[in-house]
Amino acid sequence: MTEISRRNLLTGAAALSAGTAIGGFAMSPAMAAAPPAGKQAPGFYRYKVGDIEITVVTDGTTRFKFADTHVTNKTRDEVNAAQVEAFQEKDMMTTPYNPVVVNTGSKLVVIDTGTGEANFQRSKGATGQFQTNLATAGIDRNAVDMVVISHFHGDHINGLLTADNKPVFPNAEILVPAAEWKYFMDDGEMSRAPEGRMQEVFKNLRRVFDALGRKVSQYEPNKELAPGLTAISTPGHTPGHCSHVVSSGSAKVYIQGDVTHVPHLFARHPDWHAFYDQDPKVAEATRRKVYDMLAAERMMVQGFHYPFPSVAFVEKAGTGYREVPVPWNPMI
Amino acid sequence: MTEISRRNLLTGAAALSAGTAIGGFAMSPAMAAAPPAGKQAPGFYRYKVGDIEITVVTDGTTRFKFADTHVTNKTRDEVNAAQVEAFQEKDMMTTPYNPVVVNTGSKLVVIDTGTGEANFQRSKGATGQFQTNLATAGIDRNAVDMVVISHFHGDHINGLLTADNKPVFPNAEILVPAAEWKYFMDDGEMSRAPEGRMQEVFKNLRRVFDALGRKVSQYEPNKELAPGLTAISTPGHTPGHCSHVVSSGSAKVYIQGDVTHVPHLFARHPDWHAFYDQDPKVAEATRRKVYDMLAAERMMVQGFHYPFPSVAFVEKAGTGYREVPVPWNPMI
Repeated sequence: MTEISRRNLLTGAAALSAGTAIGGFAMSPAMAAAPPAGKQAPGFYRYKVGDIEITVVTDGTTRFKFADTHVTNKTRDEVNAAQVEAFQEKDMMTTPYNPVVVNTGSKLVVIDTGTGEANFQRSKGATGQFQTNLATAGIDRNAVDMVVISHFHGDHINGLLTADNKPVFPNAEILVPAAEWKYFMDDGEMSRAPEGRMQEVFKNLRRVFDALGRKVSQYEPNKELAPGLTAISTPGHTPGHCSHVVSSGSAKVYIQGDVTHVPHLFARHPDWHAFYDQDPKVAEATRRKVYDMLAAERMMVQGFHYPFPSVAFVEKAGTGYREVPVPWNPMI
Repeated sequence: MTEISRRNLLTGAAALSAGTAIGGFAMSPAMAAAPPAGKQAPGFYRYKVGDIEITVVTDGTTRFKFADTHVTNKTRDEVNAAQVEAFQEKDMMTTPYNPVVVNTGSKLVVIDTGTGEANFQRSKGATGQFQTNLATAGIDRNAVDMVVISHFHGDHINGLLTADNKPVFPNAEILVPAAEWKYFMDDGEMSRAPEGRMQEVFKNLRRVFDALGRKVSQYEPNKELAPGLTAISTPGHTPGHCSHVVSSGSAKVYIQGDVTHVPHLFARHPDWHAFYDQDPKVAEATRRKVYDMLAAERMMVQGFHYPFPSVAFVEKAGTGYREVPVPWNPMI
């Protein structure tokens, strides 16, 4: 049907029915709608912290059946009750991965890198989106000056490498927490680590950093890494885990890394121990300290495992905390 | 600086500092970062309801100093307390506008149309974004089969016209609630309406529908307007205000129109009367009925004045309800 005949047909139909009530869709001309687009919007979001521009660039989400030990000190039934309370699926965990890019005005800094490009094919596009979304956000990976790593789990470091194990950020200095490097690069620690997941963590980080010729700069907490970007020691999830505060004028955001895993479980219940927390008691103490501060200061938090765009405020709620997503701003 | 020399400089610097702790950013080569992008991500979001594809297409947000009468039965101090509780600004209201597009497979349906293209210049791009975001979402306005209007306030109908008062959807049937048409097109009702805002509402809707030659189809509630799309009478905000349920298989979403204005005030406090509610008592009764149902059925709600992408679940909280945003899904 041509554009013209379609228009005539429609305005004719509309004219006939003007001022009369219709009860169904029988009067609508029988035409196929446009095919479903089937394609999500690009996965990035921008906001300002004072003069600094933050771009959240999602790497995607994983959905998986969680193990009985997913929360090591709670039963599946207790976890499922929390899932239902948060309108999440029973028995299934959806985990988002959200690296950020900080443009300080003089430095272009990536904080954490996602699950890696190689994961895109493997996951059928569910994860490994970081590089694609970065390009869509108009950020050239060759222009990145600095990559700051919070800790050495694969979903934070694998995105340092392309699918063929080349550096994703060839012109960037790679900054890693000194305590993380000291612990995980110690072959004695590796030899004493339990079989299974912990051995995999040690092996994977060697794979990644060896491919980069171990060319990294180690950083200490409480130091400014770039103008307005300061590292904070937040151990427990891993021995050298660091968070990062972006500050400009009176504005601040706390980029928490994995101080909590998904907030609907671990911000609401800070005493719940995620399978991923290497030292659960230290992780819990860190979590309470950080979240007490976030709630008291009413400071924005950017959470790697929060739902995209993963920026929220935190309020005290019950025996824990609750995340209040920052409303999406269609401007910057 | 060329790409090559930049790379050399950086890998050199990184090699020097490998294995050594750095205290600041003095070692980073002095290079200007990429300029800030300054541009937000495209304002659309997709999800499926069974076989039906929904695209939320934002028209933007307005930020304004609210009047003492913004909530007619509450003081400014009470409203400000609720603003602070929800991490919103004191004295300033940010109102999002989020039309949706429903692709049923056989019909491409727009529900409400935003503040209008003419508003884009006037608001310096803060609102009037609907047409641009629609195009970015890959939806051709000429392919739209049907536009369903919830009620006759300007932020829902002005987007029917281009900046030069031509139809935005030249091939679409325009469906309006029969009760809304009966009331607002009655010149007697217009003559009895108070001066000021109510007269403006009557004048504006005549401006819009006259430009369309009053070629509309009136619809009754509890009827299917397109496959899977049913209208529900939800009066109070305006006399003929309608909401819409999209249903496919066991999946449903309740497209509420203005059953609540911004949820952090009017879902949390269903007894608060928005300045915009024409019959506040009826609006409150409708609000309680709809929100009791949403909470009991655990049904998703799509809220025109919710923050983009404006799709949430609803839980009972205190003396009212609280919205729980549906996590962003980077796939569809």
